[in-house]
Amino acid sequence: MQFTSEQRLDDGVLEREFTLGGIPGVLWTPDSASASAPVPLILIGLPPLGLRRVHARVAARARYYAAEYGFASATIELPGSGDRPRLAATEQARADLRRVMEAGEPVTGEIVDALVLPLVERAVPEWQAALDALLALPEIGGPVGYEGGIISIGIRLAVVDPRIAAANLFAGSFVPAAMVEEARRVTVPLQVLLQWDDEGNDRQASLDLFDALGSKEKTLHANMGGHTGVPHFELDAGARFFARHLS
Amino acid sequence: MQFTSEQRLDDGVLEREFTLGGIPGVLWTPDSASASAPVPLILIGLPPLGLRRVHARVAARARYYAAEYGFASATIELPGSGDRPRLAATEQARADLRRVMEAGEPVTGEIVDALVLPLVERAVPEWQAALDALLALPEIGGPVGYEGGIISIGIRLAVVDPRIAAANLFAGSFVPAAMVEEARRVTVPLQVLLQWDDEGNDRQASLDLFDALGSKEKTLHANMGGHTGVPHFELDAGARFFARHLS
Repeated sequence: MQFTSEQRLDDGVLEREFTLGGIPGVLWTPDSASASAPVPLILIGLPPLGLRRVHARVAARARYYAAEYGFASATIELPGSGDRPRLAATEQARADLRRVMEAGEPVTGEIVDALVLPLVERAVPEWQAALDALLALPEIGGPVGYEGGIISIGIRLAVVDPRIAAANLFAGSFVPAAMVEEARRVTVPLQVLLQWDDEGNDRQASLDLFDALGSKEKTLHANMGGHTGVPHFELDAGARFFARHLS
Repeated sequence: MQFTSEQRLDDGVLEREFTLGGIPGVLWTPDSASASAPVPLILIGLPPLGLRRVHARVAARARYYAAEYGFASATIELPGSGDRPRLAATEQARADLRRVMEAGEPVTGEIVDALVLPLVERAVPEWQAALDALLALPEIGGPVGYEGGIISIGIRLAVVDPRIAAANLFAGSFVPAAMVEEARRVTVPLQVLLQWDDEGNDRQASLDLFDALGSKEKTLHANMGGHTGVPHFELDAGARFFARHLS
């Protein structure tokens, strides 16, 4: 992991950009983080919009976690997003998705699988490599939480990596049937966000996914509004969930 | 309203029992409450078990609200519960409910209506009278939140009394069809608790009720487990919901 820029923000949070095997990422650490008092870490999964486009929004979350709860946060670019090389299969699946949605046709399981499964296969080992590097820093101590992004990536990461102690997921992306099955193997405490009138997702499918998740402690937070309408107060609700499990 | 006992608890909270028109109740006020700095008020609706049986549990909530958020809390006995005179129609409806549940028969709309509607008709004016008396105390300033108890009572109270500014309801009791319709007229911010495997309630019916509630700001908190398994952390989540709307 190579740090490529470093900036001390006005709330004392240290924002560092890095690259790891060609993958760009950002790490935010609170003023208080030091080798003598290492802090818990939140991995913030991105939507497939590119880090540049969501940087301000993700940085605001990370700064809140740092200032209010003393957590470090980190994110990495998704495979095929932002400045990373495009993935031909993913681009094809996105084009297929756009086509059927514009035509008002149903989104088939084949399209969802093609859109999500290769991304999960690539992204999860990248998150694990990032975690190796981040936990090697003296100021990061764990435990580790995962939040946001593509829920299938969060599910796979929670299943395969025992370093993930809790996850705050957004039931707001297409989920392959195979990942709904895999969800039954998740055991860490979960908080799951659902937008009640999400234009891109079927409410019942999201409720079924919540039902399938295997964790004994799981809480659904369903709010009114569309995909991008998650209320601001859920930021603190997520932070308090992590505080219960990471502090 | 006549205070019948007064006790300063070790966290500085003042617990006062009262009667109002023959109805027993309890008021908890934080140490900080005074005529010069009146505090918001939470009305805590009871289950039909009698105040005596749930006193310790309700007092723990009220003391948390007082100590952590500076809220006053009050509760009154339900019609026909605890030491209050039994209501023949309600007793009959309860016996009918027990009978069909023990026989594994479906709980009909007629039984639910008989169980809940007369209780709503009686309890809501009693809450309003209690609210008149409580808000006349110099140390209580409002705004007012309602929580808990029989959700139909919370719905009616939120619809008819503009002093209710927010409600934290438990989708965990039988709800008459007429009250689901009335739910569409609720406009105050809501938080709604749902136990995912509530043995006494149908999950889909609870989700439909949440959907019907008319408020633009409403959040569902669904947790694993049965009727009495609401996780302890929902106490603070409820308090923070009220803090957003009452402070």
